[in-house]
Amino acid sequence: MKDYAQLRQEVEKTLQELDIWKAEPQGLYQPAVYALGQSGKRIRPVLALMACQLFKQDYRLALLPAAGLEVFHNFTLLHDDVMDKAEVRHGLPTVHVKWNTDTAILSGDAMFAVAYSLVAQAPKASLSEVMGAFNRLAVGVCEGQQYDMNFETQAKVSMAEYMEMIRLKTAVLIAGALEIGALVAGAKEADVKRLYDYGRKIGLAFQLQDDYLDLYADEATFGKRIGGDIRENKKTYLYIRAMENLSADDGQKLEHWFSLETTPKNDQEKITAVKALFEKAKAQQDCLQAVNQLFADAEADLNAIASPIDPEALQVLRAFAAKLLGRKF
Amino acid sequence: MKDYAQLRQEVEKTLQELDIWKAEPQGLYQPAVYALGQSGKRIRPVLALMACQLFKQDYRLALLPAAGLEVFHNFTLLHDDVMDKAEVRHGLPTVHVKWNTDTAILSGDAMFAVAYSLVAQAPKASLSEVMGAFNRLAVGVCEGQQYDMNFETQAKVSMAEYMEMIRLKTAVLIAGALEIGALVAGAKEADVKRLYDYGRKIGLAFQLQDDYLDLYADEATFGKRIGGDIRENKKTYLYIRAMENLSADDGQKLEHWFSLETTPKNDQEKITAVKALFEKAKAQQDCLQAVNQLFADAEADLNAIASPIDPEALQVLRAFAAKLLGRKF
Repeated sequence: MKDYAQLRQEVEKTLQELDIWKAEPQGLYQPAVYALGQSGKRIRPVLALMACQLFKQDYRLALLPAAGLEVFHNFTLLHDDVMDKAEVRHGLPTVHVKWNTDTAILSGDAMFAVAYSLVAQAPKASLSEVMGAFNRLAVGVCEGQQYDMNFETQAKVSMAEYMEMIRLKTAVLIAGALEIGALVAGAKEADVKRLYDYGRKIGLAFQLQDDYLDLYADEATFGKRIGGDIRENKKTYLYIRAMENLSADDGQKLEHWFSLETTPKNDQEKITAVKALFEKAKAQQDCLQAVNQLFADAEADLNAIASPIDPEALQVLRAFAAKLLGRKF
Repeated sequence: MKDYAQLRQEVEKTLQELDIWKAEPQGLYQPAVYALGQSGKRIRPVLALMACQLFKQDYRLALLPAAGLEVFHNFTLLHDDVMDKAEVRHGLPTVHVKWNTDTAILSGDAMFAVAYSLVAQAPKASLSEVMGAFNRLAVGVCEGQQYDMNFETQAKVSMAEYMEMIRLKTAVLIAGALEIGALVAGAKEADVKRLYDYGRKIGLAFQLQDDYLDLYADEATFGKRIGGDIRENKKTYLYIRAMENLSADDGQKLEHWFSLETTPKNDQEKITAVKALFEKAKAQQDCLQAVNQLFADAEADLNAIASPIDPEALQVLRAFAAKLLGRKF
């Protein structure tokens, strides 16, 4: 049984040992190395390993599929950054900025293929199920990104549509990582499903908390500028809930702010005004309550696992999820 | 045992029955439907089915992986067309022209995931080997595209480098299709390898013939304008062989032509001059000879298969390969 720090270390080691670090052609693999070499929390692979040891199996069985999940996650970042025209990630220039768009596309494709080749090294007994799980999450993430792009030009986004988008774009990868770890460990179908549901709810809570932190985080800890979503007119939980709760008059004011491009001139006024409207609608309270509810529901899924599980491994998983959601544990 | 027309029909039917034709979000799947709906020869999936029935197995065992190969091939076209700025394919606007670049990237990614999910439906007994084969070919195709892009700015490309590039970009997908068909059929390892080698050589010959036909085809039959590679200053077999065979003086002339952008003004003069230099170097004879040699070597691989094979299925495969290489059979 290993804790987060140890499992993360194992993930780093596995990633470092991949062929890509010195593979040819370098023009294809160096951008992948650049993206993977940036320090991240390795949330998804660590979750896969935690799920594996939860069912009293050696986490090493899941190491290669777990590494595949991290490579996959980074592939999606390469392509998303092109589509979102994002110029900086983890404080460094994105791949399409440092190299060019063609490189970001093709290196991303190669990373997708490498991700699959790692996942396909799951133990043979669970290979078919693991591939099924990975295929579902890969397709889901693409669908989520498409909905996210659609929302930019879609006048009205309902809360149901928004929750479905973040389920696909964010939660299925968290849930799928836990699912794959459990499958590799040979867990029973019903328990795999419970862990998947747990991951889905943790993933949704994680995204909603991110929406909340856009306005209420400590800028230094959060690592992003406060109000970024408002600047980009992003229809997050806060915006959608506010539009539901506000009077027609206030709703029109909010819509108006979101129809304006953000400029250095209107920046502060816009953020202050939008924040006031969000607060008038009690959107941030609703958001925190949704996070809490999802977290509690997730706990219930975890408690419903019927097979014997390792109590220490359970504690490790719980502590990690709590930390992700900024809770003391 | 089915012939080409029948197998192609089966591939079409399998493609038509995929979920993607009416899946949501349509913005993600409609470009895939558009690309897959265009009539193609379905060379790769048909080869997989032919390989399967060669070993006296029901071709239907390989239908889903075969469909995955066609989806994969079309995914690579979506992304390649972005990188190559190609505006027309099969006489229709390419996806990034009809929609936009973001759509071509993301729909391509989704097709890649769909391709994997189809290949992963190979019979369980061969799943691990099939996934391995598919992963190798997917990574190889990305590497080939990278080398191809590198060659655009690389002053000198050796024949060995060129052959390695077309092996990766074109031949591994042909070879991998045959390999996957044979694996699904449960063929012995040595015979899988022979069929793979056969496919690799057929694939190389196919590409070299394409290089040759750029100058010597009947424009109507070929479906492309004569001299397209010269217009784009593409370093094909003809160019590389000519640079090897020509005197320093003539080599400089050829290099000079390839340093010029093609304009309506210099177009005819350039093609005539380059063609004359190619012919002076006997590059086109060498090219045809290489095609013939590869074809003969490929035949030898086929004849070396040790397991009992279906003679009619063998005839079907031979006839198809011959047809691909424009031979009477």
